[in-house]
Amino acid sequence: MKVLIVFAHNEPRSFNAAMKDEAVRVLQDEGHEVVVSDLYAMNFNPVASAADFGSRADPDYLVYALEQRNAFKAGTLAPDIAAEVDKVKWADLIVFNFPIYWYGMPAIMKGWIDRVFVSGFCYGGRRIYDKGGLKGKSAMLAISLGGQAHMFGPEAIHGELEVMLQPILRGMLGYVGLTVLPPYVAYHVPYISEEARGEVLDGYRQHLRSLDTRAPLVFPSVDDFDENLRPKATGE
Amino acid sequence: MKVLIVFAHNEPRSFNAAMKDEAVRVLQDEGHEVVVSDLYAMNFNPVASAADFGSRADPDYLVYALEQRNAFKAGTLAPDIAAEVDKVKWADLIVFNFPIYWYGMPAIMKGWIDRVFVSGFCYGGRRIYDKGGLKGKSAMLAISLGGQAHMFGPEAIHGELEVMLQPILRGMLGYVGLTVLPPYVAYHVPYISEEARGEVLDGYRQHLRSLDTRAPLVFPSVDDFDENLRPKATGE
Repeated sequence: MKVLIVFAHNEPRSFNAAMKDEAVRVLQDEGHEVVVSDLYAMNFNPVASAADFGSRADPDYLVYALEQRNAFKAGTLAPDIAAEVDKVKWADLIVFNFPIYWYGMPAIMKGWIDRVFVSGFCYGGRRIYDKGGLKGKSAMLAISLGGQAHMFGPEAIHGELEVMLQPILRGMLGYVGLTVLPPYVAYHVPYISEEARGEVLDGYRQHLRSLDTRAPLVFPSVDDFDENLRPKATGE
Repeated sequence: MKVLIVFAHNEPRSFNAAMKDEAVRVLQDEGHEVVVSDLYAMNFNPVASAADFGSRADPDYLVYALEQRNAFKAGTLAPDIAAEVDKVKWADLIVFNFPIYWYGMPAIMKGWIDRVFVSGFCYGGRRIYDKGGLKGKSAMLAISLGGQAHMFGPEAIHGELEVMLQPILRGMLGYVGLTVLPPYVAYHVPYISEEARGEVLDGYRQHLRSLDTRAPLVFPSVDDFDENLRPKATGE
């Protein structure tokens, strides 16, 4: 298996960095090829702008997704985007490894999605969900949280983690056709002992070694919707 | 009322820019003071990093939120962050005006949240939700979407918009104690006629003129949770 780890943390000795290093070791041990995009180390630019396109369908008015489609076809995406697109094409599995910031990705990784999940390549029109451009590849989140496990749930103060992660799991990963494996969540990481961190890292190792036993998340099937993406009438 | 509009769009003549200009006009007409943070025009840096702190509690190991707390107290936040923090302090209402990218904010705005919603100022410990640091101030989203209204709902292809916006509405805005007004949503904007855009802009104008009639969203009350933020036993 070819694995791309997209990694973002602003402290090189962080727990997330340890997770990334452990994933490289475990996956290579199992015979997989691994490539890491270390976004902070790469000084990755997260800002989607006109500078992302070497040629323009409409030089006077920027509609970002339309220019993505044009530049992908013309081969004129900015080199930093094109390099990441090539890694996505190469990969069978993409692991997103990051600390949750405000129930989402740190901006540097959100911008990787904004710029690299290119319209015309990853999605477009009805090419979404089970018809998405990345169909056949898988993805997984490996995340850390400041909060504790009891703070998440239907009655818990922060609500259900699955709901808070929907924009990522469904709206980004499921949307482009990726098979989305259950996330690995490291709770309360900045505040626990070295020993407890070791246990959480062990848990991640086990998670990585048993990826093929995990049932992927379920998302809509485009076949259940008509040409305008309205639900088809059923049972009549 | 003092209003801060945090605005992000990479096309200066976009529909979002028209919404921003319209909001400035309508709100000033009604006697409010308005300040705009135009993130693309400011070339705002969205990447949370060690460079954000002029002094460090721990120079050897970066825990971003802990250094925010330290630098806020010491007055050593990076000047671009400090300037935005001052605007937040000044404002009674913050309007976030942006196109939805992947069910969330464009990275340049997500990074504004990551860097400006400073721990120790906006939140910390039990100072969240109705005890949050920005209690007494309000916030509202003014957003555009590529999708159409029928694509959002319990049975719709993209699910419920309210669920997809939870990380922002609850996880960012409600979390820091802001009174969150219902969002104004402009659907299908890149693909509709000039006339239809005019109608959507009219709708935004009406929305802005009647802000005081809109019931805010409801979030948890910290008083319903114990010192470890576990739900208190009720009815016993």
